[in-house]
Amino acid sequence: MPLTVYKTIAKPFSKNHRGVEVRERLGLSFSASLDLLSHCDRVELLSAVANKSYFAFFDPKTKKRSRAVNAALFRPEFEEWEKFSAALLAEDLQGFDSHRITSLIYSVAISFCCCVDLVSERDNKTPGTFFEYLIAHLFAWRLGVNPLTSIQVLNLDMDTHLPTDFIFDLGLERPKFHLPVKTSTRERVIQVWAHQRVLDGAFGTGRFLGTPVILTETKTATKSGKVEEICLPEQWRIYQMHIAQLKRVYYLDMPAAYEKLNMVFPPIHIKEFGEFFWEADSLSV
Amino acid sequence: MPLTVYKTIAKPFSKNHRGVEVRERLGLSFSASLDLLSHCDRVELLSAVANKSYFAFFDPKTKKRSRAVNAALFRPEFEEWEKFSAALLAEDLQGFDSHRITSLIYSVAISFCCCVDLVSERDNKTPGTFFEYLIAHLFAWRLGVNPLTSIQVLNLDMDTHLPTDFIFDLGLERPKFHLPVKTSTRERVIQVWAHQRVLDGAFGTGRFLGTPVILTETKTATKSGKVEEICLPEQWRIYQMHIAQLKRVYYLDMPAAYEKLNMVFPPIHIKEFGEFFWEADSLSV
Repeated sequence: MPLTVYKTIAKPFSKNHRGVEVRERLGLSFSASLDLLSHCDRVELLSAVANKSYFAFFDPKTKKRSRAVNAALFRPEFEEWEKFSAALLAEDLQGFDSHRITSLIYSVAISFCCCVDLVSERDNKTPGTFFEYLIAHLFAWRLGVNPLTSIQVLNLDMDTHLPTDFIFDLGLERPKFHLPVKTSTRERVIQVWAHQRVLDGAFGTGRFLGTPVILTETKTATKSGKVEEICLPEQWRIYQMHIAQLKRVYYLDMPAAYEKLNMVFPPIHIKEFGEFFWEADSLSV
Repeated sequence: MPLTVYKTIAKPFSKNHRGVEVRERLGLSFSASLDLLSHCDRVELLSAVANKSYFAFFDPKTKKRSRAVNAALFRPEFEEWEKFSAALLAEDLQGFDSHRITSLIYSVAISFCCCVDLVSERDNKTPGTFFEYLIAHLFAWRLGVNPLTSIQVLNLDMDTHLPTDFIFDLGLERPKFHLPVKTSTRERVIQVWAHQRVLDGAFGTGRFLGTPVILTETKTATKSGKVEEICLPEQWRIYQMHIAQLKRVYYLDMPAAYEKLNMVFPPIHIKEFGEFFWEADSLSV
């Protein structure tokens, strides 16, 4: 069962976010999720998103339906994970272009989320935590350091520990990464900019590169099964101008409305998650 | 039934937030809530908050327990609402000191929230919307204008409508109020500072007085029934220094940990909700 495997990730993750043990358990969880989903039906959903089609998993016994799955991105292939794991171990990602990585990591994440949808009652916390394990592990592998989730703020007579999203400190005179991880954001996205603003204010603008990773912005209507992407591109532009500057926003299932923000001035750089593996070293320049 | 009355508030509220019709329905809802609760038991809760005791309503038929109610603040007296309503109509609040108003409005809000807890399944939206009706109506009465919930941002080549919390525009060269209304905030409170930051950035610092109104910060453990106040005073200080400046934070059930923020430098002014009625005119100086 995916949830049984999930419960064994917390301990090795807290010991060493980038350790091989975490990756092994993420793989076990992917395998268990694919197994569970192979016993479910697929039902096509009505897509309101141009050029994307979505389906959901459906358990005929419990009559439960999972969240929407992007049909073109989803590849239920465990061998692909094994190949990727081997490449990570060998520290050689040749052959894994950005889109291939994005599609694989999307499949790992969404298959687990769908299992939780089918097994549990309105549980948003478990998918969110699993997605944090997955993305923080991969970021830590790529950056070569483990993250912190709180930071000391020394400010004259104040000495406070501020809880944060994942913070990766690459060391003296090198960038620090600020990594919020969300399965979706909607109007709560303003928190990401606000946390970036606090880091900029407390430590100086430009010291932390804000690189949130988001799974998807789809919303499925309960009755009609119609899938929409909830996007607020004009508000994002206002946040980027008036709250703080994010360096990148990475998506697993990139919403079309946000992709356009790359093309306006001033741009917000919204990219497929897989791009991070290839551009991480150049983000500080 | 309180929920039946609740559904009749939306229409008059959208027509005229400060109209007498809204106040009448808020009163009907208070009366219906008190009636429903009078058929329920009260169970004492274990309070982890110094100098405050809490109880919950319990429906012996459904075995459901409501959220925590501050015993000292709660006054299930409909006549008190009638007196207050008459005072609002006469535009003369003599005799209604801040604490008396706070206690009454707390009772109106929490009694409705408890009814929803007892009748519905995990519904946070309905109590939140009711609390918005109640607070926005009273703010609109006190300030003499109806609020907006979106604002035009003209910025060179951009022309965007930004959805906002309630915004009260008192007119030329007078303050504008920015009123977020929340039944509780926890870590989501950073959104309030972030929205204030956007208003400051788009229109200039000091033009909008940020005055959020919050019901309570209590959290009740499901099993033990232990009531705690979830407070993050050190984080609030960092937000107030690095994101934006809020003018006031008003509480119905003021958490002790936040009251202390009035006494440190730089202070954050945290007050009982009722104070607003007496200090509204002087907030702009």
